Amino acid sequence: MLLEETVEKIGPLDEEAMKTARRRMDSLIKPPGSLGRLEELAVQLAGIQGRTLPEYGRRAVILMAGDHGVVAEGVSAAPREVTYQMLSAFTGGVAGISVLARMAGADLVVVDIGVARPVDIPGVLSLKVREGTGNIAVGPAMTREEAVRALEVGIRVALDTINGGCGLLATGDMGIGNTTPSSAILASLAGIPAEEATGRGTMVNDRVLERKVWAVKEAVRINRPDPGDGIDVVAKVGGLEIAGLAGVILGSASRRVPVVIDGFISGAAAMIACAIKDGAREYIIPSHLSGEKGHRYMLDHLRLRPLLHLDMRLGEGTGAVLAMGIVEAACRIMREMASFDQAGVSDLEGDKLHK
Amino acid sequence: MLLEETVEKIGPLDEEAMKTARRRMDSLIKPPGSLGRLEELAVQLAGIQGRTLPEYGRRAVILMAGDHGVVAEGVSAAPREVTYQMLSAFTGGVAGISVLARMAGADLVVVDIGVARPVDIPGVLSLKVREGTGNIAVGPAMTREEAVRALEVGIRVALDTINGGCGLLATGDMGIGNTTPSSAILASLAGIPAEEATGRGTMVNDRVLERKVWAVKEAVRINRPDPGDGIDVVAKVGGLEIAGLAGVILGSASRRVPVVIDGFISGAAAMIACAIKDGAREYIIPSHLSGEKGHRYMLDHLRLRPLLHLDMRLGEGTGAVLAMGIVEAACRIMREMASFDQAGVSDLEGDKLHK
Repeated sequence: MLLEETVEKIGPLDEEAMKTARRRMDSLIKPPGSLGRLEELAVQLAGIQGRTLPEYGRRAVILMAGDHGVVAEGVSAAPREVTYQMLSAFTGGVAGISVLARMAGADLVVVDIGVARPVDIPGVLSLKVREGTGNIAVGPAMTREEAVRALEVGIRVALDTINGGCGLLATGDMGIGNTTPSSAILASLAGIPAEEATGRGTMVNDRVLERKVWAVKEAVRINRPDPGDGIDVVAKVGGLEIAGLAGVILGSASRRVPVVIDGFISGAAAMIACAIKDGAREYIIPSHLSGEKGHRYMLDHLRLRPLLHLDMRLGEGTGAVLAMGIVEAACRIMREMASFDQAGVSDLEGDKLHK
Repeated sequence: MLLEETVEKIGPLDEEAMKTARRRMDSLIKPPGSLGRLEELAVQLAGIQGRTLPEYGRRAVILMAGDHGVVAEGVSAAPREVTYQMLSAFTGGVAGISVLARMAGADLVVVDIGVARPVDIPGVLSLKVREGTGNIAVGPAMTREEAVRALEVGIRVALDTINGGCGLLATGDMGIGNTTPSSAILASLAGIPAEEATGRGTMVNDRVLERKVWAVKEAVRINRPDPGDGIDVVAKVGGLEIAGLAGVILGSASRRVPVVIDGFISGAAAMIACAIKDGAREYIIPSHLSGEKGHRYMLDHLRLRPLLHLDMRLGEGTGAVLAMGIVEAACRIMREMASFDQAGVSDLEGDKLHK
């Protein structure tokens, strides 16, 4: 119900606001286009928010944590309990995302959507759908009904965060083993061969990488996810945190709030969100190009170009919060720069310009 | 004298601090290397500052403004008076760099080092070496003595800014026509053909571009700058603000303070600084890849990889101050994240890792 309602609310960008935003951008004291992607971003934000001068303000990164049955196949170098152990590091302020969110002035919302043991940690939202997924190399990750519940958890957290006053969201993930289902989603939805879709994750060796490729192939072969049905794909070969983050993206788009996506896992979530509702894409802001091999295929599929090239591959939302500064910069340029007229600066000579 | 003293003070990075920094970085709760270039940057900063935990703190962007005789050849789409007109926009808080420096928490230091008319604007430092350069398509930009004075102006401003409490500098430029001398510097020092070294600047059309290529060729042919002598190159085919910014880089390196360079003009200044003292390179932090055609050759020559890919080509230091957030992020990661031991998180299984 909530999922359907949310998807129905996702409309197109405001063309009128984008037109006036583009006009204002070209009037500012700089050669037209010289602020490059900051200009495009400001115009996109105007279209999302439906106003010429986009606002920045309170922001949050929503970090969804879940476990993965496929770790039984030995696809990760980290023990499964690390998913649980990291929760206290997130809330304690000492994990990578805690540090970078604090710097970005972003609230960190940590959600247990599918950790494989009971979680009772102050500051962690308990919205568990089930204790970890099934092993996708031998069967589905979860039922369709569970996938819908996970999507709706994400939607609800996004809406609550927006209702709490945030106007910019970011996605982050924690889940040992979650590059494997993300590769399976990439293989299913973009038709990328498992060998290309699968990378080294936490930097596993060739033996483990071979095992991952095998698991991705098996996941697709056995479960036969329907590429025309995003819910089917995330239910059969995905993960609980991935479905949750897809919900965050849909919820954010339904409220006309921009959402910055992190790397490979968030990219898989964005693919699911766009498979469910293609128009969600317009509300997504890419952040970095991950060091994880398949990420560039994901961004190509989503027709998004990364802003940062930092070879990061940590997840947690670390790349997304770093890019929040770029989003704020785009808003500020539009709001705070003067026009040629206002500043008394001579305009460029049109006959010398490349059209 | 000041130039020689400064160059002599530029020493190598602190290997011991870099070693302990690398060790600490690998102990933090993340797969080794997973924060990519943030990790490299943190280690570089440790080597620059000579301490395991690099500090971030007050920061400033130094913007040098100067005019160019070569505009007489019709190489720019902007009238020359714009160099002067923009000064009030910088100090008035309404130019691109004003907005982005404010956001980054950076002081904006505006210096008249060579504007082609008297300047008396509160907030602009008057350190003019001469009123604009000569036309490099027909003769030298300035004398060798003037080039040394311009370099020393940059050194002095950098040292004053550092003495005032800043621990991180950035370079910015203003000077109508200054992509032409920057291309001539690139052609001279890296041996890049004028056609490849010269781009559209403020997005000039084919006719003006041809004129620029011609001017770059003439500048090199007539002046015969010595690629083994950075001072000779900047005197003959450079600019006053370019020499000033090269001085800022040398001054910063001499005090073991990292300096973030902006795009094409700052890149030319960095080439000059490194031609004068190769070791200055270790103190430079690249920011963005400019939309200006020759910039990638500059960064290749300097063996620097850009952090941001935003197609910006405004100058003023706009890309450099955006990257200051990345520098702060690198410091904070090193200072504020916990180690596996501290956080009680299980380490990765070594037998599964790629070495």
